[in-house]
Amino acid sequence: MASQKLRPILWKKGTLHLLEQRLLPFREKWVKCDTVEKVARAIEDMTVRGAPAIGITAAYGVAVAALRSKAGTPLAFKRDVEKALLRLRKTRPTAVNLFWALERMQLRLKEMTGANPSDQGRWLEREALEIHKEDEALCGRLGKNGARLLAGCRNVLTHCNTGALATGGDGTALSAITTAARKNRKLHVWVDETRPYLQGARLTAYEVAHAGIDFHLITDNMSASLMKQGRVDAIIVGADRIVANGDTANKIGTYALAVLAKAHGIPFYVSAPTTTLDLAKSSGKEIVIEQRNPREVTHPQGVAIAKEDYPVYNPAFDVTPGELITAIVLETGICRAPYHRSLRSALAQSQASA
Amino acid sequence: MASQKLRPILWKKGTLHLLEQRLLPFREKWVKCDTVEKVARAIEDMTVRGAPAIGITAAYGVAVAALRSKAGTPLAFKRDVEKALLRLRKTRPTAVNLFWALERMQLRLKEMTGANPSDQGRWLEREALEIHKEDEALCGRLGKNGARLLAGCRNVLTHCNTGALATGGDGTALSAITTAARKNRKLHVWVDETRPYLQGARLTAYEVAHAGIDFHLITDNMSASLMKQGRVDAIIVGADRIVANGDTANKIGTYALAVLAKAHGIPFYVSAPTTTLDLAKSSGKEIVIEQRNPREVTHPQGVAIAKEDYPVYNPAFDVTPGELITAIVLETGICRAPYHRSLRSALAQSQASA
Repeated sequence: MASQKLRPILWKKGTLHLLEQRLLPFREKWVKCDTVEKVARAIEDMTVRGAPAIGITAAYGVAVAALRSKAGTPLAFKRDVEKALLRLRKTRPTAVNLFWALERMQLRLKEMTGANPSDQGRWLEREALEIHKEDEALCGRLGKNGARLLAGCRNVLTHCNTGALATGGDGTALSAITTAARKNRKLHVWVDETRPYLQGARLTAYEVAHAGIDFHLITDNMSASLMKQGRVDAIIVGADRIVANGDTANKIGTYALAVLAKAHGIPFYVSAPTTTLDLAKSSGKEIVIEQRNPREVTHPQGVAIAKEDYPVYNPAFDVTPGELITAIVLETGICRAPYHRSLRSALAQSQASA
Repeated sequence: MASQKLRPILWKKGTLHLLEQRLLPFREKWVKCDTVEKVARAIEDMTVRGAPAIGITAAYGVAVAALRSKAGTPLAFKRDVEKALLRLRKTRPTAVNLFWALERMQLRLKEMTGANPSDQGRWLEREALEIHKEDEALCGRLGKNGARLLAGCRNVLTHCNTGALATGGDGTALSAITTAARKNRKLHVWVDETRPYLQGARLTAYEVAHAGIDFHLITDNMSASLMKQGRVDAIIVGADRIVANGDTANKIGTYALAVLAKAHGIPFYVSAPTTTLDLAKSSGKEIVIEQRNPREVTHPQGVAIAKEDYPVYNPAFDVTPGELITAIVLETGICRAPYHRSLRSALAQSQASA
């Protein structure tokens, strides 16, 4: 196994370096971001993607601006940093982690009002590093908890991208796999390609290969046949939103896997941080599913496979009912049904420790 | 609805014209085949594909050679035609329909031994036209039988390509859909793209659009979510091989659809000619599944979505157990469980009428 961990967001001497994810898995090119504008563009053009990774990148964007501020007074410095915050907020208007990270940076700025600019710059840098470190630790806890469920598994299937490329650490669902693989060198992963946007084929396969774990790439419609052959011992996926009864919105295709897992008696796990919990919603019926650009279906990687004007149905997510989920892995521990109880107590625990 | 039927194999004044299927749906280019070599190459390079379509094309290939033979004697003529048969047999060594059609042409040749070459040429031409016509009639019967099952359906889902592009008529499973749509103009079709080779996105969507039927293109992993929403009333697919207990080998992804249909209480139909029946095999366990080129997965339409050297699992087919199949549509009628009885009697009936 490769000993070097995949870390696509690097902070070196006040400059942010990002692994250009749009070129993966074919080329490993690093983009040097030494201005807030460059950081903002890297978020906008998807050089970096994945909710936690975007939040971390934005925090570093603030630090880049703060360290390079030529302001002579605390007030001018504040103006420079607030300009950076404003620019970064405009990059991905629906990204929750982005706003959370920028708010935290702004709070830090407020606490330091009046201090000299160079001190403030160093403190903002420290805050961004802290945000990154916390996410890495969170991934570690998710990995440790998830790996317990995968102990003894020979073949694990995963969907979409939930690894190092999307987070500040080893990921969510994929962290469970890489952690389990450290103890069980015979672990083999079925990476499904995850149409339409191909996150599995382009990113997860790259991550699993980088970690030195045995794997095969499959198309999404091959998993059922593998389950029937007894060649899938567990499925683990991430989540975009988990509501009170355990209903989970995640990348389209997740629900099919959960139904198929149930039909074949295979455990189906979801792994996500407690920030994904939306317990104000009682069931998945309240989750609105966004429709995405039809070109993702008709033009994978920009190449036409169908006519541009064909009618296309392209939902970003589907909702998997809690009753199909064997367990939900959080950084605080493992939740099982009844979820309306276990998730609430997990959230309370996480808020108490925060 | 478009009144003109899609017919990709045209015989005009002793020359074969083939719709170049590799350019579909983007360009409608016709390839003129006036030598047996051109016909053979069209089969080899997949200008034409689909088992029945290949058989028909090969038969016309023999007719092309026979009509153009400059032989002055019956013996020389026989040698010319046998050379053509030999060439055509080498095109797709595993295509059952190809051999069946060529054998039938050879039998006809034998029956005419000694007749003058120009008469023999015309008779061989008539035999090829007959093979084509019979397949068209077969598709018509499959369509009529299948349409009875789809009466009253609003949304029908289909997988892979089973229409006019693959056969000499309106197809097998797709013939049921186009026939049902003639009576029910509100019929809507979910066309799944059918990874890895994208027959749904490239060919079925084109066929359905050509027939003027309302449809949406989806990726294979979206169907489960549609079923959950009550937006799929029936699923109908073709078959590559059906064994005695109803177990059916068909394009990879079929089995997943059957399991999902069962879980959602949706009828799952298979449509195929009796020539697909292989009742010597008692169950699907006896069916050997061919592994195909990994590049179909890593390079859809020739464009890399994953690294070339990634390990890939790419089975051509999967096997759907008979118990998941609501009914099997044959040209002789509709078979239901227990299949070991209904299929045997259907086959006996078809052999009696042959």
